[in-house]
Amino acid sequence: MSDFKAQALKYHAEPTPGKISIEISKPAETVRDLALAYSPGVAEPVRCIAENPDDVYKYTAKGNLVAVISNGSAILGLGNLGPMASKPVMEGKALLFKRFANLDSIDIEVSHRTTEEFINTVANIADTFGGINLEDIKAPECFEIEKELIKRCNIPVFHDDQHGTAIVTAAGMLNALEIQGKDISKATIVCMGAGAAAIACMELLIKCGAKREYIYMLDTKGVIHTRRDDLNQYKQLFANNTDKRTLEDALEGADVFVGVSGPDVLPAEALKLMADKPVIFACSNPDPEIKPELAHATRSDIIMATGRSDYPNQVNNVLCFPFIFRGALDVRASVINDEMKIAAVEAIRSIAKEPVSEAVLKAAEVASLEFGPQYIIPKPMDPRLLERVSKAVSDAAIASGVARI
Amino acid sequence: MSDFKAQALKYHAEPTPGKISIEISKPAETVRDLALAYSPGVAEPVRCIAENPDDVYKYTAKGNLVAVISNGSAILGLGNLGPMASKPVMEGKALLFKRFANLDSIDIEVSHRTTEEFINTVANIADTFGGINLEDIKAPECFEIEKELIKRCNIPVFHDDQHGTAIVTAAGMLNALEIQGKDISKATIVCMGAGAAAIACMELLIKCGAKREYIYMLDTKGVIHTRRDDLNQYKQLFANNTDKRTLEDALEGADVFVGVSGPDVLPAEALKLMADKPVIFACSNPDPEIKPELAHATRSDIIMATGRSDYPNQVNNVLCFPFIFRGALDVRASVINDEMKIAAVEAIRSIAKEPVSEAVLKAAEVASLEFGPQYIIPKPMDPRLLERVSKAVSDAAIASGVARI
Repeated sequence: MSDFKAQALKYHAEPTPGKISIEISKPAETVRDLALAYSPGVAEPVRCIAENPDDVYKYTAKGNLVAVISNGSAILGLGNLGPMASKPVMEGKALLFKRFANLDSIDIEVSHRTTEEFINTVANIADTFGGINLEDIKAPECFEIEKELIKRCNIPVFHDDQHGTAIVTAAGMLNALEIQGKDISKATIVCMGAGAAAIACMELLIKCGAKREYIYMLDTKGVIHTRRDDLNQYKQLFANNTDKRTLEDALEGADVFVGVSGPDVLPAEALKLMADKPVIFACSNPDPEIKPELAHATRSDIIMATGRSDYPNQVNNVLCFPFIFRGALDVRASVINDEMKIAAVEAIRSIAKEPVSEAVLKAAEVASLEFGPQYIIPKPMDPRLLERVSKAVSDAAIASGVARI
Repeated sequence: MSDFKAQALKYHAEPTPGKISIEISKPAETVRDLALAYSPGVAEPVRCIAENPDDVYKYTAKGNLVAVISNGSAILGLGNLGPMASKPVMEGKALLFKRFANLDSIDIEVSHRTTEEFINTVANIADTFGGINLEDIKAPECFEIEKELIKRCNIPVFHDDQHGTAIVTAAGMLNALEIQGKDISKATIVCMGAGAAAIACMELLIKCGAKREYIYMLDTKGVIHTRRDDLNQYKQLFANNTDKRTLEDALEGADVFVGVSGPDVLPAEALKLMADKPVIFACSNPDPEIKPELAHATRSDIIMATGRSDYPNQVNNVLCFPFIFRGALDVRASVINDEMKIAAVEAIRSIAKEPVSEAVLKAAEVASLEFGPQYIIPKPMDPRLLERVSKAVSDAAIASGVARI
C-alpha cells in the first residue's frame, strides 16, 4: 500500500473513527440547563412550532442543517458499491460543508429496492433538514430522483454531481472562452460522456448562451444523433441531427472539448483536429481524458482544465456546493433555481478575474495567481468564495422570489 | 408567559437556533488534510468497506452515532403534533445522549402515511447509524414499529418511552419493595394506564419476578379483564380473570400502584384501600396521578416516586437511555435484549444503595443522599451511572452472545 493510502486510512481511523461528530451548542451542565433543554422547557418551542411551523427555524438547528444523502450507486469513480461503502465519502462531504461554509451537515446512507422507494424515504425524512445534497447516485435514476424530490420537499434539493460540476465547469468555461476570444453562442462543443454530470454541464452551458445544435455529445457508442434508437429521454435532448459519428468527426473544427468520461480517451491526434485556440476540460478523475503534458506538447494554443489539484485550473465542486447551500439557507430559499445557479457561475468566474491578496495566496498555498490560461477559476481554498458566492446566490433567490425571509 | 417559558424559548433561539451542531473531528485546514478527508484519500476506506462491511466501524462515525427518530405522534404529554413540532424534543434527546454518554446523536423526524411506510423509511436509513432510539411514537403502532425494526435492522433499536421508562421504574420499584419488606413475586400491582410505557413497565416487572396474574391494568374503561371484547393484542396480554372493575376494586389490598396515565386520577380515599406499606409510582408528568403532599398526608407508610425533578425519587429515563446505548455500542451489540435491560435495572438500583461521594452530591446538586424511602433511585446527574450501567450492559451483551467485538 502506498504511503498516501496508508495515511488516508489512518486519518479516517484515528484517534476516533470517522470525520465528524455531533456536539452540544447550548449550556448543558446543570439541572436547570437540562430543564430548559429537555423536559419541561422543551414543551414551549414544541407548542410554538405546532402553532407556527416556521418557528422550527427559530428554535431548532434545521435551518443550518444539510443532509448529504446517497445510495452509493456511483461512488466517486469506483462505481456501485452500495450505501455502506459510500459513508466515508458522504462524511467527507459533510466535513467540507462545515469547513467551507459553516453548515452543519450529516450523511444519510439509503438502502432501497426501487427508485420510488428511495424517493419516498428521502421525502419522508426531509422535514429534519434545511437542505438536501444528493450525492453519488447513478444516472439516469438521479434525474428522476432529483426532480421528484424537488417537487415533494419544500427545502432545497441539489444533486451536486450534476449541478455543482456544471456550475464550476461553466464558470471556468466562460472565462476560458473569454481569454481565447470566443463567443459561447457560436462555440462548437464536444462533450465526451453522457452521464449525470455531462448532461447537467451541457444544460447549464446552454442556459449561459451555448447553442444546443452546436453541441455533440458522445456516449460509449459514439455521437448521440437523431437516428439512434437506443437513447433514454435525457440523452434524447442532445440528439444532434448530424452525420458525425466518431469522436474525431465531432472534434473537427470544434472550439470546446468537455470530458466527463474516463482516462485517456482523447488522443493527441484528435486534439489536432480542433479549431484554433480550443478549450479542453478533461475532468475524468484521477486520470483525465488527455494528460495535460501531452495536450500542451501537442498544441500550444489550448486552455486546459482538469479535475486534479496538482495541475492548474482544477474543476472542483467545492468551489460551489458549500456556498450555494449557504446562500440558499441564509434566505431560507425553497429551491435552488436556475437564477441561483447562474448567479453562482458569475460570482465564481468574477473572483478569478480580480487581483488576489496575500491572504488568498496563503490560503491557496500558491506563490502567485493572475487571470489567464493558467488561472481561469479560483482555487478551492480562496476565502473570498464564501462571502461572494453565497451573497450572489442569496440575492438571486430574493430576486427570483424563492427566498422566504 | 412565565419567566421559565420565556427563558426556555430564549435558550432554544439564541445565540444560534437549536441545541446541537455538527463539527469536524479531524484536521481539515490544509490542501493535504482535505486530500486525505475527501478526494482522493477517501477512496481507500471506501474500498475497505466494500470488501469488508465491518470496516465501516473503523473508518466512519457510525459506531458512535445514535439516531433519535420520531413521527411526533405522542410528543411528551402534548399529543400528536406531527414530526416538525417534535424536533426540539428529539434534538434535546440528542443533547442528552452527548451530555451523559458522549454519544454522537442526531434527530430524524419522519413524515409518513402508514405504519409500514414509517418502518420502511427507518429501515432504509438504518445503515447510517450505530443505533436507533425511537421516541414519542404513539401506541399501539409503536409496538409493531419497534418489533419490525428490530427484525430488519442489524443495529440496536430501542423505543425509550417503553423500555427506558420500564428499566428505571423497575430499578426504583425493586428498591422500594426491598425497603418496604415486600417480595415482588407476591406483590399485587395496579397499573393505571395501558399505553406503551405501562405495558413495557409491566412486562419488565414480570421479567424481574412479578406475577402476571397479580397485575391489574386499567385503561380509560377500567380494569382490563378477560371478559372485555375491546382489547388490542397488547392489552389482551394483561386481561385478568377477575371480577374487579374499578380503580378502587383493584387497589383493595394492593401493594403497588404504578401510574402512567394522567394528573390526579388517584384519589386520597382510594390510596387508603391499599395494603400496608404500599409503593406509589405516580409518573404522569408534570402533574402526577396524586400529589406527593396529599399522598404523604393521607398515609405515612408509603414510598413514593414521581416523574418530577422537584420531589424525591424521580423516575427519569436519562438514568438509562444514554448508558444502555453506550454499553450496547461499546461492544457493537446487534440488539438490546432482555439480559441487557435487566443488567441495566440491577446496575441502576445497586448505585442507589451505595454511599455517595462529595463529587456525586455536587453533580446531583443535593446536600445528602442515603438509601431509603426518600432515595430509592440514583439522581440523573450521578456520574457513576456512565461507567457502571454501560459496563453492566456491555457485559450482559457479551454474556448473551449479541456482542460483535
